[in-house]
Order: sequence, then C-alpha cells, then structure tokens
Amino acid sequence: MSQIVTLITDFGIKDYFVGVIKGVILSINPNATIVDINHQIKPYDIFGAALNIKNSYKFFPRGTVNLVVVDPGVGSKRKPILVNNDNHFFIGPDNGVFSFIYKDSISYKIYKLENEKYFLDPVSSTFHGRDVFAPVAAYVSLGESSERFGKEILNPQSLDVPEPEFVANKINGEVIYVDQFGNLLTNIDSNSVDKSDEIFIDDKVIKGVSDSYSDLEIGKLVAVYGSSGYLEISACKDNASKYFSIEDLKVSVIKK
Amino acid sequence: MSQIVTLITDFGIKDYFVGVIKGVILSINPNATIVDINHQIKPYDIFGAALNIKNSYKFFPRGTVNLVVVDPGVGSKRKPILVNNDNHFFIGPDNGVFSFIYKDSISYKIYKLENEKYFLDPVSSTFHGRDVFAPVAAYVSLGESSERFGKEILNPQSLDVPEPEFVANKINGEVIYVDQFGNLLTNIDSNSVDKSDEIFIDDKVIKGVSDSYSDLEIGKLVAVYGSSGYLEISACKDNASKYFSIEDLKVSVIKK
Amino acid sequence: MSQIVTLITDFGIKDYFVGVIKGVILSINPNATIVDINHQIKPYDIFGAALNIKNSYKFFPRGTVNLVVVDPGVGSKRKPILVNNDNHFFIGPDNGVFSFIYKDSISYKIYKLENEKYFLDPVSSTFHGRDVFAPVAAYVSLGESSERFGKEILNPQSLDVPEPEFVANKINGEVIYVDQFGNLLTNIDSNSVDKSDEIFIDDKVIKGVSDSYSDLEIGKLVAVYGSSGYLEISACKDNASKYFSIEDLKVSVIKK
Repeated sequence: MSQIVTLITDFGIKDYFVGVIKGVILSINPNATIVDINHQIKPYDIFGAALNIKNSYKFFPRGTVNLVVVDPGVGSKRKPILVNNDNHFFIGPDNGVFSFIYKDSISYKIYKLENEKYFLDPVSSTFHGRDVFAPVAAYVSLGESSERFGKEILNPQSLDVPEPEFVANKINGEVIYVDQFGNLLTNIDSNSVDKSDEIFIDDKVIKGVSDSYSDLEIGKLVAVYGSSGYLEISACKDNASKYFSIEDLKVSVIKK
Repeated sequence: MSQIVTLITDFGIKDYFVGVIKGVILSINPNATIVDINHQIKPYDIFGAALNIKNSYKFFPRGTVNLVVVDPGVGSKRKPILVNNDNHFFIGPDNGVFSFIYKDSISYKIYKLENEKYFLDPVSSTFHGRDVFAPVAAYVSLGESSERFGKEILNPQSLDVPEPEFVANKINGEVIYVDQFGNLLTNIDSNSVDKSDEIFIDDKVIKGVSDSYSDLEIGKLVAVYGSSGYLEISACKDNASKYFSIEDLKVSVIKK
Repeated sequence: MSQIVTLITDFGIKDYFVGVIKGVILSINPNATIVDINHQIKPYDIFGAALNIKNSYKFFPRGTVNLVVVDPGVGSKRKPILVNNDNHFFIGPDNGVFSFIYKDSISYKIYKLENEKYFLDPVSSTFHGRDVFAPVAAYVSLGESSERFGKEILNPQSLDVPEPEFVANKINGEVIYVDQFGNLLTNIDSNSVDKSDEIFIDDKVIKGVSDSYSDLEIGKLVAVYGSSGYLEISACKDNASKYFSIEDLKVSVIKK
C-alpha cells in the first residue's frame, strides 16, 4: 500500500506551519512519503485549491492521501471531512475544495471527521491542519479504514464551477487559472475543440490550435491542447497573461 | 530510532544551496528523512530562526535532528555546536539561534563541533551548512553519540528575548512575529489571559478573546489563543499586519 | 544503489506541476527519494539551470538521477536525452542545460530518449517534464540500463560558457551568478587567485582575498574563495549585488 501523503495549503513558505504538519504526520507514520504539491495557494482561495487537487491527484497511485488545507472557516462550524474516491483519499474542510473530485467521480464516499481519538489533544481553534487533518492523514496512510473516523455524510459543500456554454457553433468559456509561465488555462475541454477552430479571447483572434507553444515568433499568441486536458492560451516563449486583464476573461471557440 | 533531519535556513529557494545540503546528508545516511521547515528566514535573522525552531521541534519525535543554519558569522570564531535536549538534537552556530531551547529546558547539553572526522574535507570558509553542519547532522541521525563530536561546553550565546512585564492588573507585551496570513504573534502566554480581558494594541482596543478568527465580519480585529500557546491578534479573513506599523508594536492586556 | 532523484526546473512553486512530476516518479518507483534542488530558475534560463546542476550534482552519491527541466523548446524538435557521467545520471532536453557536465568530464555518454515504453501515454506537447522526463527518471532510478532508453548520440547542444581570459599578469573574468544573499559568483577559478592579488570590479578595487565574509565592517566589499571553487565578491553581512549593475559585470584579477 502506498504511504504517500500530498499537501496543498495556503500556508506559504515563510513560516514553520507546513513543517509542523509534517512533524505530526511522521510522528504517527514514520514511513510516510510526504509530497508538497503547492503551499502558495492564495490565502483563502478555495477555488484555486480545488483546481490544484483536481489536476494533480490522478498522477499519484491509489492509496495516496491528499491533504488540502485552505480553510478560512477554521474553528467555525464547517465540517472536517475525509473523502474516499476509489482509494484516492482526500482530507480537508468541507468548504468546496473537493468540488472537482465530486464532479469527476460517481463512487466517492464522504466521512465527517469526528473521532477525536485520531486528533491531537488539545485541538486548537486556529490550526486544524496540525491538530485534526495531519494526524487523520497519517492514520489513513497507515491503512485505517475510513469508517473509523466518523459517520458517512451526503451533500457536501460544492463550489459553483464555471461551465462552458455551447451555443450553435460556438463554445463560450473562460480563463480559470494562470500558471507560473503566464499560460491561461480555460474551462473548455480539449476534446470539444478541433485543430482548425478559431479562438477568440478579449479582442484577439487565434486561428487554429498549435501543436506546441514553441514554434513561432516570440510573443505570438497561440492556443494549445493543455496538459490538463483543457484548452490553453499561451504566448510563444513569453507570458500570455501580461496581454490581458485576467479578471473575468472570456474565451470563445468558433467551430469551423 | 527516528532518522528525521529538519532544516531551517536563510538560504532561500532560488539557489542550489539547500539541495546541496540534502545531498551531503543523503550521501552519509541514505535513509534520512529530510524535512524542510523554513528556508525563507530573512538573511541573518537569528531571532526569526530561533522562533521557528522553538515552535516546530516539539511536533517531531525524539531522535529528530534539527539543523538551523542562520549564520552571519560563518568563517569567524563563533562555535559550531550540537545541542542534545532530551534526545531532540539541534545543530547550528552558537549565535543564539537556540535561545528558546535553553529557556524551555533544564537538561540540555551542548557540544562544540570540533572532531573534523565528521566534516567534509576541505571545509570552506563560507559554507559550513554544507561542510560542517550537514555531515554532522547525518552522523547524529545515524545514532552517533553526542560526545564523539567534541567536548561539552557551558554558557552558550543567548539572545535577549523580550519578556512581557506584569504590572498590577496589566500585562505589557509585544508583537514578536508576523505570519503568512498577517496574524500578529505576541510574547504573552495564552495561559495568563482570560477570555474577558481587554487587549490594547497601538490605538485599538479588543474586548475579550475570541474562539477563532472566523466568526465575525471581514477585517474585524480579534484576539485569539494562538496555536503556539501565545496570544495572537488577527483580522477576520483579512491581514491584521496591514493595520499597524509592526516595528516595535506593543500589546497590553488589562485583566478584568 | 541510490534511488535519489533530484529536480531542477523553472516551474516555480505556485502551481501543481512539480507535485505532478513527483507523483509520476513515485507511481513507478515508490522507493525513490526525491530532492528539490531549485524550481525557481528564471523561466527559460538555460544557463542558470546549467550552473545549478554543475554546482550541486557532485554532492550526491553515484547512482543519483538528476532531472533538469528548463525546456523552452518543449514540443519542438529538440531531443530529450539521458546523460550517464560515471553513474551520475542527467535527464532533460538537449538544449545546453548539461554544458558544464560535458566540460567537467571526459567519459560521459549521451542517449536520446526514444523508447516510448518508458513514457506516459499519451505524451502531451507541452509537459514533457511529466510525460517523458519524470517516468524515464523513475526507471533509471530503478536501475534500468541507459541503452534501453534509446541510441547513443554525439555532439550534444552546448552553451557558449564565458571563460576567463589570461593576459600577462591579469585575469579578465565576469560575474555569472548572483545568489540569494547578493554574493557575486565569478567564472574565475579560485586556484588561479592568490591571497595577495588585487581584484577590480566595476570602478572598485579589493585588495586581497579574505578568509570569510564576516570579519570586517558591514557593507565592506570583500573577495573570498567561494564554496563552489570560484572567486566570489561579497559585502560583509550585506548584499553586494545592490552596489553594481549586474548585467555584463566584469571582474579582473591583477597578480601581485
């Protein structure tokens, strides 16, 4: 059984918080392999965390425990939960961070974390990442069965995920993520876009989908089939995001 | 025995220095589990490093080796040391980075690192993290006993740690750390503050201690019992630090 | 055999890309020990990546697999390669990132990665770090022999590495890297500089090489024998880079 525990948080990297979480996990399961996915989620950005876990978990083996702690409601009544999706495990607050997991799957089960035997004692009101989520993750990575942590629940919190709209020969989508290179990830599935389609973004038109973002002059805007399965807008060896105002940026595809 | 080695440095994450330290450790102990606590300590900020190790080491199991390399005096006559505090091990320069460890404990022992058999050869004058501290950490993680590294010393360097002042019905403390979320950590022990006390910070008054920082309107200042055992000032789902000039920021508690 | 896999990329730390690469590696080799060297290489900075791998690989044991993914040509015709240099393994694009390895060694062999059995299926056009380099790294770390991945090639791409010029009693070099502390690394080998030589940088003169950067007044410029084997210019407990315009910064040594 895999004993991998992955971490996505908005804790940043200038404090000791992530290190402390790792200490708690390793104190319970010294054989855990801990993998940082991203600690630079913008503070309280639940949607950003949801996209990060959506795009990463499938590349880890079954049995992996994914800890997602973006938790503006820590200490309030939001539930701490464990999601078992075909033996990919997810642990975090019930605030929508797992929205895309629920959309991708039909067979997940959700458990409310309420068995305090698996928590640190005492539980602080401000750091459930350390006191609740980390120890539970460690016990799950040791193979403890999901039912032990609490009772199954239905109807988890889910975000309004922006969906593309299909109108006649047009798909109306939007930019939902900007990566480190300034590439613009849309919510339009690559499978619904042909190589010869025209892509409209802001006041610009891109004719066709390119095979990669490297074969044209520097700064040239291109559309590519992104590595996460969605249409992406890039600028060749350049930062596409600087050519646009990203907030609420619409992208349309005209079928040819 | 735990073979965990934790790292706190001011080396940042834009160079290869931390990676090289890990290479040295793994060359000596291939089974070491290396955990990054924080590499974003401000350059030469010994007090920041001291707070980070204070607030993290207790969450790791006994036997863990903690490497703290914030070392403005590298290459000068400051001593390299190993501190054994009840089988929590600490390795770094004798410049005050372990001040809080000495305050927390009564039974620590300190050894000067002078047995060159445990160093890389040659030892550079500018990178003792790689040439002295990393190999010693690896050998300690393998179980080598502390006396082997050098002779015991007394009277280590210690920082002037700001202590709160108790005056009649008042506690006068200060802000000693600002975290990633802008929360202000004070030096006032949570145990000395009652829920109904009034907290004064700069020209603002906070009535009572809240259970969490999430249950009021956005931006509202609250005092909470912080996760490290000290009183903390936060702004609900907001960054408290932006409301204050942090330098030398005083906090008082009036007992009710 | 070591099962260490090191990572150098320009992927940054605000996305899930590095995490996904680790998931792919651990899915194939659950016992791999993955070590981050640097993910903050400036986007597309092949020279920076080349310096980082040059200065780090020797501190890892033989058998270590070094993944270097700074790959502006991803999806174009540049070759993916595996370099075996005396059982230090290097995997990345053939764009010059391994230039210094070729200079350091006489016995390396280079293989073009073309056996698709070792790739993810399908291979995207924009993320070969995940789809080609990560799985190959995992298989190499498991001991798969280099010839299995593709045929040997000669004449890899190499960068024009700036070399110092020796003129009479003078060495003309330049600054090639600035580290986190603002120290200026030159391309002048420490072995060619005597302690009493004079160093000229921009319009400033430094008399002699110091033993460390810590024993003079704050801000004082000093030359030291750097930890990577090259002459370094530092400012005592200060950031030397702020005193210069770094672009194309020349350094000369006058032999005394």
